[in-house]
Order: sequence, then structure tokens, then C-alpha cells
Amino acid sequence: MNVADLLGLPVAVPSTALFTDQYELTMLQAALRSGTADRRSVFEVFTRRLPEGRRYGVVAGTGRVLDAVENFRFDETILGFLRERGILDEPTLGWLADYRFRGDIWGYPEGEVYFPGSPIMRVEGTFAEAVLLETVILSILNHDSAVAAAASRMAVAAGDRPLMEMGARRTHELAAVAAARSAYVGGFHRTSDLAAGFRYNIPTVGTSAHAFTLLHDTERDAFTAQVDTLGSGTTLLVDTFDVTEAVRTAVEVAGPDLGAVRIDSGDLLLVAHRVRQQLDELGATKTKIVVTSDLDEYAIASLAAAPVDAYGVGTQLVTGSGHPTCSMVYKLVARADSGDADDPAAPLRPVAKKSMGAKSSVGGRKWAARRLDADGVAEAEVVGTGPVPEALAGRQLLVPLVRGGEVVAREPLDAARDRHIAARAGLPLSATQLSRGEPVLPTEYL
Amino acid sequence: MNVADLLGLPVAVPSTALFTDQYELTMLQAALRSGTADRRSVFEVFTRRLPEGRRYGVVAGTGRVLDAVENFRFDETILGFLRERGILDEPTLGWLADYRFRGDIWGYPEGEVYFPGSPIMRVEGTFAEAVLLETVILSILNHDSAVAAAASRMAVAAGDRPLMEMGARRTHELAAVAAARSAYVGGFHRTSDLAAGFRYNIPTVGTSAHAFTLLHDTERDAFTAQVDTLGSGTTLLVDTFDVTEAVRTAVEVAGPDLGAVRIDSGDLLLVAHRVRQQLDELGATKTKIVVTSDLDEYAIASLAAAPVDAYGVGTQLVTGSGHPTCSMVYKLVARADSGDADDPAAPLRPVAKKSMGAKSSVGGRKWAARRLDADGVAEAEVVGTGPVPEALAGRQLLVPLVRGGEVVAREPLDAARDRHIAARAGLPLSATQLSRGEPVLPTEYL
Repeated sequence: MNVADLLGLPVAVPSTALFTDQYELTMLQAALRSGTADRRSVFEVFTRRLPEGRRYGVVAGTGRVLDAVENFRFDETILGFLRERGILDEPTLGWLADYRFRGDIWGYPEGEVYFPGSPIMRVEGTFAEAVLLETVILSILNHDSAVAAAASRMAVAAGDRPLMEMGARRTHELAAVAAARSAYVGGFHRTSDLAAGFRYNIPTVGTSAHAFTLLHDTERDAFTAQVDTLGSGTTLLVDTFDVTEAVRTAVEVAGPDLGAVRIDSGDLLLVAHRVRQQLDELGATKTKIVVTSDLDEYAIASLAAAPVDAYGVGTQLVTGSGHPTCSMVYKLVARADSGDADDPAAPLRPVAKKSMGAKSSVGGRKWAARRLDADGVAEAEVVGTGPVPEALAGRQLLVPLVRGGEVVAREPLDAARDRHIAARAGLPLSATQLSRGEPVLPTEYL
Repeated sequence: MNVADLLGLPVAVPSTALFTDQYELTMLQAALRSGTADRRSVFEVFTRRLPEGRRYGVVAGTGRVLDAVENFRFDETILGFLRERGILDEPTLGWLADYRFRGDIWGYPEGEVYFPGSPIMRVEGTFAEAVLLETVILSILNHDSAVAAAASRMAVAAGDRPLMEMGARRTHELAAVAAARSAYVGGFHRTSDLAAGFRYNIPTVGTSAHAFTLLHDTERDAFTAQVDTLGSGTTLLVDTFDVTEAVRTAVEVAGPDLGAVRIDSGDLLLVAHRVRQQLDELGATKTKIVVTSDLDEYAIASLAAAPVDAYGVGTQLVTGSGHPTCSMVYKLVARADSGDADDPAAPLRPVAKKSMGAKSSVGGRKWAARRLDADGVAEAEVVGTGPVPEALAGRQLLVPLVRGGEVVAREPLDAARDRHIAARAGLPLSATQLSRGEPVLPTEYL
């Protein structure tokens, strides 16, 4: 089969198996040859730090990781590519043809918060089957968690006001779909991205742009056309020419039941106050005001006292508000000495790179629990490699996601969204400060 | 057909038509209703500014835009989704069923440099057919150009030394593929991302990670296993434990023909000098040194005098080195007054949003040319709406990309890469300074 045929759609990739750095496959080949490929191994995903000044991280993308693991298969097209390029030898290609992940994956459930050192995901299996998943797991978690963390801060800043994700045009077209999903987990309510609505059933939103007004001979013509087809409950964009004139025209055209007006430029604080006053004077007391101009969590917070009813956020959301990626890594933390992957009693040896500078890590298969104070507020992220203390047994954070290769933790996106709200609410109050600071929980190693 | 069935693969999207913000479709519906949908329209992509301190921008993603436009079709599944959600009425759904873009697209060719106000892409057709492409075009150009700009700066810093893209794990799994493509356009030589090698035929690279060393009982075992299967020309990772010890072992195992050693942590400048000296003393004078630890263009430049042979760059490359997106917008700049789209002589009226704050734009269908000084060095980006001055006629920047809906400008990726090198070489020398500054060319409007 011709590779180009499969790629008629620029987004089609036959499986997730090529979302892989080449070294994972060359390591596999070398391990198959040296007889170490079957050593039982534990890999963990964690970060050494949060982005500077951030109080907490947000786990997002877990559901996408499960999809990716399930679809991580090497079909003939992929094997042909690897063969043609001379990347792998025949025994390794043969091994890959039968590949599916048959191990176990544990992890923080999606929406949970995390801190430096939190074992966000733990992948257990043979070295060969687990090493291959490094890149795809990190790609998803690093991207999605970065967006969710920004979304969460924006949701805190917005309070009860709805948040709309509108950033598709500012990021890769498929990253945009994942970003809309992550934004929803982090507390957003809607997305303008139809692909995200389609793929993840997220409610969508959108009415018109400046181009629509400019297309018509007058602003009144444009508003009339929009109200005629979308009804008076629509949102009219009022800053193409003169805002005061546009608001007057909008209410004349749509009547006092006009759904909302949108302001996309100017001094939003000032303009929102003026527009609210004008709408009220025109009797459109229930018409809402939506603002959408280069917002981030700080701009949203600065509008808390303004008569704004909803926020549309683009660039800063999909680029993680200054931190477009997390620094999650995927590290081998323990492995069997023998190649006997079938012996669950075989001792696992903790392993870790010896540090040069900041790249230290802690060896051993880890559990994690969040310790609460007397008032039930989280006070520490406790990470350990030995037995779990009795007092923490009920507060463990890792849950089974994949068992023997089968996904066991599918859930609706709303479950992750609800979990995030609950997890954030369990943190000390300072978690919701937007100002720079240390992580709100210290990480303690037992 | 069940939507979920189509989505068995987490990356499968049936066409590019849903990479669209909802308002484009609701505008379409309103325009169909008001009779303005067929007005001949010109949309232009441009930026109002470069990222702070940057001297030039790099156009990338053009080839992906052409793919996306070709595949922008509304099949039954997509129409069913839009119907179920109640987003559009039946006449609009019927119109979409027959949609394909039949207009013209002009643009700066891929790899070309750009400046504030450069009309990077110009889409001409009916309002209806052109308005729909806003989001997908911006997603691709904003993402890809951001990565290419970072890549170009890194390529300047690296001089003749090869650059390897290794950032897949730090960005969305498909953004990573596009990032590898953009990095190649910007001057990188290889990628670790197999999906990018598969999709765009970019040379791939990769040998082993710390996990491979930790998997084995000794570092010597690991090196032996790697050399046994990948040959002595491989690259051995020497910073898992003690670098000096590892380099000694590496040369003992592979012999003086060892291809390269990789250093991924520590003070790279210091370590590279020590390793070079040690390799030379061991007779491995041709063994190369590859460094890969959190590099950006500044770190690369700081290693210019160090004995480093190649750089692997990840996070900072795929996140645009501080600027993960460009601020390109897609604006209606001219449109016919009548609905007669078939009359090429119908006058086009320049249109533009009236500015509030920084969101100004210049109406009218634009040409662009780069004026040279007496030495043949670029001295201004000239943008105009009237006739092209004779002296600039041969220096025009926009080329036809799509004519009557047919793509006319496919080219191999190397053509874009070569074009970028030539375009950058034609700029004033200060373009290649990494320090912050103004755009190296002023934009003049005629």
C-alpha cells in the first residue's frame, strides 16, 4: 500500500505507534538482542518542578493517553516504513508486529491536582512494552496538563461567570481540539472549536466576527441579517465602528430581548461599564455583555467588578498562559534483575540516574497520598516507596487505569471536570491566588 | 454511521472542515439569508507585530494549508453533527454539502521571511467560501510559523553544526509532527519523531536514553548491547552515572571508531571540553559530541566555542522559544458591493474595522515587495493597494497557491528550506543578532 494514499487527509495517522522518538525503538532492538527486553520494569511520569510561580498543577489528558495506548499498534504500513528506513532489524520488526501493551498503568485520575514529584502516572510491564510508550504519554500529558492548569487559574479568576474557549486559531489544529478538552476539564464551559464539540461533545458557541459586519453595506444590515437567522437571543459584535452607535442599533434591531453584545477591543473595563449603562437605559436590562480581547487570568480578575457576564479566551489559554508545556518526564524507576517477567515475586531494583545538576530523580516504585490537616484541608503531598502508613491508606492518589492491557478507567469528561473542582477546593486557600508563589503543598518523601 | 466508530483512532478526523470556529458557519447562514454570501471578498492573513524583540518572522505551514483547503469538505457525518446540535438550518447544511473552495489563494511562499503588515496570505472568493477557512488557515500558519522562527534563530546560532529536533514529548502529539516539519523548514536537519519522518520524509535520529543504561546491570553491559546491535558508529549516552568513567567504557566497548557520545545534563560547556580532551587522549579523535539538555538559541550560541558537534533541541523549539504562537489574523479587507461574484470587473470596496486601541488594520487588496538597497540587501517591506511601482514589479512576494480551487504550488519541503536560507541571507546582517531589537525591515505602505 502506498503511504501517500493513507495520508490524503493531512491529519490521518494509521495508529499512535509512530508518536514515538526513534530511540525507543532502537533501545527495544538492543534490549531484545541483549536479553533484557523482558525485564519487569516500572516507569513513572513526574515533574521536578511546577512552572515558575504556579501553586499547583492539573492532570489532564489521561483519557487521551488511554486511547493512545489502546491504538498503539504497528501495522504493515508502519513496519514497512521502519524497514525501508533501515531503522530496525527483522527480529525487532517481527516483535513489533505482535505488539500490544499488556501491562498495568496506574495514575492520578484526570482533573486531580499535582505537585513536584507527584507520580502522576506509573507504567508497569516488561521493559520492551513500557519503554515504547514514553513519547506518546508525555506528549499528551505535557500538552493537556499545561492548558488545564491555565484554564483552572482562569476559572478561579472568573468565579461564577462562564468561560468560552476560543483559541483554536492560535495553536495547531489538533492541539486545539485537545486544548478545548483540557480547558473543559479545567473549568471552561464552552468552546468555539467545532472539532472539539464533535470529538468530545463539549458545548459549542459562536455567532459572528467583524468580517460579517464589514460584508454588509451598513452595520444595521449586518445586525438585521444576524437576528433574522439566529434570533434575538444571539450575540451581536458591537465594536466594528462606534460602540455606542452599535449598541443603539443592536437594541433597535433585536429589541430589548437581545441576548448579548460582544466587545473585542478597547479598554474593556471602561467600555463594559458604558455599554451596561447604555443597555439598561435602552431597557435591555437582561442583555449580557461578553468580552473577548486577549484575556488571561489577570485580565479576567481585573474585570471582576465590571459588568461582564462571560469571557472568551484564546491565545493565553491554548498556550498555557506563559507555560505551554509541563516538564513531565518518563523515567525508569525500578526493574527486575532477571528476565522473568512472569514472576510477580521477583525483586524489583530501584534505579535512578545519578544527578548532574537539577536532573535528579528518586528511584523505586512509588505510591502517593495527600495528607489533610485537622480541618480537612490538604497539607502535604506524601510520596513513598515503602509500605503506605495506615493513616494515609485511604488518601491514596493513584488509581488503576489499565490492567493487563485492558483499559479499566474510562469516564465521561464531566467526571474529570467535577474532580478538578473538588480537588482544587481541598487545597489551602492560597492555591487560588494568582500571584507568583511556591507550590501550596510541600512534597514529602517517605 | 456512528460518530464514535469514526473516532476509534484518537487522531482521526474525517476532514479538515471542523477545524472551524462555530461563528464562521453561523455567519455563513446569516449571509445566505441576507443575500450577501456571494459577494466577492478578499481576506488577508497578516500580523500587526512580531513577537517582542524578534527581527523577522518565518512563513511556515503553507504546504499544510494547501492540504487543509483541499480536504475541507462537509461529509454526511459532519453535516449530521451540525444538524443534531442545531447549529445550522437546512438550507445552510445543503449549501455545505456541495462546498469546496473554488477561489484563489496567493501567499508568501513557505520559508519566506515576513514583517508586521506583510500580507502573508490572501484568500479571494465569495464571502461564503472564504470566510469558512479562517480558523484552519490561522491554526496552521500561527503554529508552524512560530516554530520555524525559533528554528531559524537556532540555526543561525548553530552555524554549520547539525541540529536535531527532539521536542515531540513537550507538545501535542500531532503538533509535534508539524513542529518537526517547521523545524526542518527553519534549518534543522533531523527529527527524533518517527511520525514526522513517516509523514514528511524528514531524516530521523535516535539511539538510547538513560532508561537503557539503567535497565542493564552495568553501564558496560548497556553499551555493549547497544554497540552489538547498532554498530560502533552509534551514539552512546554518557551521563547516567559518572561521565569520565562512561567515556572510558564507551571507547573500550566501541573502539576509537565510536560515532558519538551524548551529554544530556550538567554544565555542557565544561563537560564538553573535558570529554573532548578525554576522547582525544583515548584515540577517539573522530568521535563526535552531541549535547541535548534544555537548549535554546542562546544556549546554542554560548556553546559556539565549545567542542560540540551537534545539538538536540526539544522544549524551546516546539514552544517557539518563548513565543508559541504568532499573532496572525485573517481579515476581510475588500468586498464587492453587489452579489455578482462572477463579474470580475465589479468594484471591490476596501473595508476595515475602525480601530479601538491596537487592533487597527489597513483595508484593500494588497501586494507586497521587498525593496533592495544598492548592494542588493533588503531595506524595506513595501505593501500597497494601488499599482505596483515599476521598480518593485520584479520583487513581488505573493505567489499563486490556489487558482480556481486547484492547488498550483505544491513543492518538496526542501524547496521551502532552501528558500528560507536564501531569504534570511538577503536581510541586513542585524537580522541574525539574537539580542532583542526592532524588525530589521520597516514596513512601508504605498
